[in-house]
Amino acid sequence: MPSYTAPTKDLQFILHNLLDISRSDIPGYADLEADFTAAILDEAAKLAEGVLAPINASGDREGCRLENGVVYTPSGFKEAFEAVKAGGWNGLDIPEEFGGQDLPYLMGSAVGEIFVSANMALNMYQGLTHGAISAILAHGSDEQKARFLPKMVSMDWTGTMNLTEPHCGTDLGMMRTKAAPQADGSYQITGQKIFISAGDHDLSENVIHLVLAKAPGGGEGTKGISLFIVPKFLVNADGSLGARNAVSVGKIEEKMGIHGNSTCVMNYDGATGYLVGELHKGMRAMFTMMNEARIGVGLQGYAQAVVAYENARNYAVDRLQGRDVTGVQNPDGPADPLIVHPDVRRMLMDQKSFVEGARAFTLWGASLIDRAHRSEDAQADGLISLLTPVIKGYLTDKGFEMCVQAQQVYGGHGYIEEWGMSQFARDARIAMIYEGANGVQALDLVGRKLAAEGGKPIMAFFDLVKAEIRESEGDQRLEGFVTTLKAASKDLQAAATFFMERGMKSPNDALAGSTDFMHLFGHVCLGLMWTRMAKAAYAELDAGTSDRDFYDSKLATGRYFMARHLPATALHLARIRSGSDTVMALHADQF
Amino acid sequence: MPSYTAPTKDLQFILHNLLDISRSDIPGYADLEADFTAAILDEAAKLAEGVLAPINASGDREGCRLENGVVYTPSGFKEAFEAVKAGGWNGLDIPEEFGGQDLPYLMGSAVGEIFVSANMALNMYQGLTHGAISAILAHGSDEQKARFLPKMVSMDWTGTMNLTEPHCGTDLGMMRTKAAPQADGSYQITGQKIFISAGDHDLSENVIHLVLAKAPGGGEGTKGISLFIVPKFLVNADGSLGARNAVSVGKIEEKMGIHGNSTCVMNYDGATGYLVGELHKGMRAMFTMMNEARIGVGLQGYAQAVVAYENARNYAVDRLQGRDVTGVQNPDGPADPLIVHPDVRRMLMDQKSFVEGARAFTLWGASLIDRAHRSEDAQADGLISLLTPVIKGYLTDKGFEMCVQAQQVYGGHGYIEEWGMSQFARDARIAMIYEGANGVQALDLVGRKLAAEGGKPIMAFFDLVKAEIRESEGDQRLEGFVTTLKAASKDLQAAATFFMERGMKSPNDALAGSTDFMHLFGHVCLGLMWTRMAKAAYAELDAGTSDRDFYDSKLATGRYFMARHLPATALHLARIRSGSDTVMALHADQF
Repeated sequence: MPSYTAPTKDLQFILHNLLDISRSDIPGYADLEADFTAAILDEAAKLAEGVLAPINASGDREGCRLENGVVYTPSGFKEAFEAVKAGGWNGLDIPEEFGGQDLPYLMGSAVGEIFVSANMALNMYQGLTHGAISAILAHGSDEQKARFLPKMVSMDWTGTMNLTEPHCGTDLGMMRTKAAPQADGSYQITGQKIFISAGDHDLSENVIHLVLAKAPGGGEGTKGISLFIVPKFLVNADGSLGARNAVSVGKIEEKMGIHGNSTCVMNYDGATGYLVGELHKGMRAMFTMMNEARIGVGLQGYAQAVVAYENARNYAVDRLQGRDVTGVQNPDGPADPLIVHPDVRRMLMDQKSFVEGARAFTLWGASLIDRAHRSEDAQADGLISLLTPVIKGYLTDKGFEMCVQAQQVYGGHGYIEEWGMSQFARDARIAMIYEGANGVQALDLVGRKLAAEGGKPIMAFFDLVKAEIRESEGDQRLEGFVTTLKAASKDLQAAATFFMERGMKSPNDALAGSTDFMHLFGHVCLGLMWTRMAKAAYAELDAGTSDRDFYDSKLATGRYFMARHLPATALHLARIRSGSDTVMALHADQF
Repeated sequence: MPSYTAPTKDLQFILHNLLDISRSDIPGYADLEADFTAAILDEAAKLAEGVLAPINASGDREGCRLENGVVYTPSGFKEAFEAVKAGGWNGLDIPEEFGGQDLPYLMGSAVGEIFVSANMALNMYQGLTHGAISAILAHGSDEQKARFLPKMVSMDWTGTMNLTEPHCGTDLGMMRTKAAPQADGSYQITGQKIFISAGDHDLSENVIHLVLAKAPGGGEGTKGISLFIVPKFLVNADGSLGARNAVSVGKIEEKMGIHGNSTCVMNYDGATGYLVGELHKGMRAMFTMMNEARIGVGLQGYAQAVVAYENARNYAVDRLQGRDVTGVQNPDGPADPLIVHPDVRRMLMDQKSFVEGARAFTLWGASLIDRAHRSEDAQADGLISLLTPVIKGYLTDKGFEMCVQAQQVYGGHGYIEEWGMSQFARDARIAMIYEGANGVQALDLVGRKLAAEGGKPIMAFFDLVKAEIRESEGDQRLEGFVTTLKAASKDLQAAATFFMERGMKSPNDALAGSTDFMHLFGHVCLGLMWTRMAKAAYAELDAGTSDRDFYDSKLATGRYFMARHLPATALHLARIRSGSDTVMALHADQF
């Protein structure tokens, strides 16, 4: 069975050495002293390692089942869910008035990585609930907040997001689910939704569905869409559960992975729903959930790579196979451990340098969300809005790739389910698809975010990179980092310029390069993170740390990323510059 | 359910326009007129489309099961296997004296692609048998050939390869399975073998295991290894089946994919075995099987991408989602088909340009095998020996990547097993692992093949590329192809030079870049194929073909590959040149 040990030390490094949070001016950050965050992370680690991770593989094997309309989660999920509940983890970053602890979103993300690495399928029941809470917090009425939030924060009730229908996923304008207004101000919701994660299950007393549907009078396409709360059980004014609502599970989908999460077809047959926010402004309300969800999904992508890497490393240290070509390392054994072989190391270094860079990137992104919300900082808001599709798209593409590579370290054993490496790859695969397939993220990045606010956010990003380069240029030891970052960021600027020049007269030229741009951008972000981490590592070494090994390893890992991965920006730029001619040359029949 | 339509037209293009086989001087090729090969491919297509493909998804769902020592294959496999048998397909390229049709290996490969795309798990029962036949043909005694081959060619009996043991895969020197010589000249085989594809099943009367084991007196490591025939049922002198041998199935492995193939743990408990070839020269005999098997596995990698691409294309044409940003294409429908979107086209073009290039590369490789064997051409033998790890490693890495991308075109539906796209990715995944994990292929390429015969094969390859460039340089229309191929081949030469200069004094510098070198090499091979295919397409267009669409599409697809993929050689070269410093910097505890 695979192991999981939470990387609390590296999380602490990022929180305190890289982001230096306790000295940040973001409201609430001053309380985040190293001892305090360590205590939180250690507690999360204990739960993840002892309770969540041990049922990850069995949950995959057993899956969910639907019997007589009731969904059952795998053995042990109920008990583990109760343990998460009891720890109050879902309310970590929710306002106190609804039962939360009002810590920054950043801490929710750090803990989130730990829970997702340990058991992604189980964590999704909580993650979807958290997303639904955010939407109600942002758009619900005071009455709705009071009625639904406390029970959702405590996870007595869980939440879902209902967007997709059989004939429409990305293109929500084609939605058919209808909302018919009733005399009492409620709506009758009728239609079918598919791919509903955590759609129904036996973990909570009630499920609060957030459902997009079309109410009369809104016009064509997405304009007519509104957001509704549709509880599985109606909720009485005193908060007690009332009648069963007319919503039911059509079936559970058989998927490639995340078998422990019940992905349901949900049928709404005149179910009672309550409008959230303004009528016909449902898309906006849903986007509140989706932006948070997208960063959460980016986190899933790299969090699976984290646990896959941990196991690949352990296997490479334990498994004896072949001899070091430069000289026997394990003379008393029948062979040397796998880790002596350069190509195995290459794979491990790919994974290590990616997951540590991705962790820094995601937590930096989370701190931008806190700055945007807690400090009401518009520039931070613009920046995280720009970076969200990069976090989602780049980290999930690469996260999956790294899971596949970790599996590869195992050779034949990687293909056998018993060893658990297949599950990490299969589970990670969904993150490239849901909450907007990665192609849609790339489209969002190039088609909307790049030109947003007249390009202010992308300019702000370039300014950040330039400032970093300027600041670090003086330090000889950082030269390798700075030179590489500079070249990569030049490629990013060239790509952005290419889009700006071509985008208006030939939109296809921009769109044909959108995925390459997302990856180019992701590389630069990780290059920026590695430059900053190198600086932070040198600071500790200069200060005479007693843990030289950790900081030396950090520097070597960063150097690997800069040498081996950052040069990919040139390839992405070359592809972008090749434009759309070769992409669009064929007519549909020629494929 | 996914569809499959055999690409017979493109196979014919490669056989006749690209390779011009009927005018080749390779013995046996003159008979391969276009009508004749078309008839074979059409017959294979009929079987694949009508019988093999329809049970691919159900075979995945149902899997194999072991009951009271008997292995059962999924429903329909027996009937489909009988149909393959009845068609005499397994003997296509086997000498007539053993019941085959003595056609070139090339034709076996072309038909192989069709069968593998249709149903990889089922085809493996045949593929392993074919590999075992090759080993017995090359190394068996006349008596062994007479006793075993006819029944294996007819597939009344099937074959397996037994190398791996629980503690050793790549490092066969640690093998523990023992062969004890008996008075009658036979051996008693005792030990456990794992990951035995098609290890046992209900498709054939007998299973002929080829087993590596250590006989006394051979010395340490791989030196003591010999190859044995171990039949499931002993075979009497008259060819009838005798007693059950002491070989049994320990269990069937639960795998990520190829569920329709029974991957077995095989226990040999003093089973009767017959030495094949010379005592203690088993490794050499096994390599005969493995080289053929490696090209077969490279074929599996791209063949899965072929069928995944076909379905992705169909989905992109059918599925309505969003609007073309340059103008509505389907005004009467609620949305435009996916294929209008540049990023969707990018994915389809990636797949199309890869599978057509990979098909050309593999069939060219197969023709080199024929030239090596049928013309006893040592240069062709050296060249295909060099290219084998590239075909295996590069085509399976990319083939899997393309299956994942085809799955991505489906959005959420790609993750649901019902749609079949997950299976293509899960099945393709094994091809990167078995018959030598791709890292081992890269090691073979850089550590052995590159320096083989004092570098003659690699020089011969560069000569081929140079000749192609020289020949095509005159044609203005090929300029884009030639320029790009030239640059890519320069990168390959630079990488080879780097290894030659560093390899001796710092082997790790070469090994740290081995996988990048394999991919660099693969890109150049596909670039060479696309240049040749472009030339062949222009020849047809110049000759006034009535099928302009096909050849125009070929040219556009080639241009896409050259513009978007060939520039990757520079990235691989940059990584190679970064050497091993960053790869080897950490000590094992720092990971």
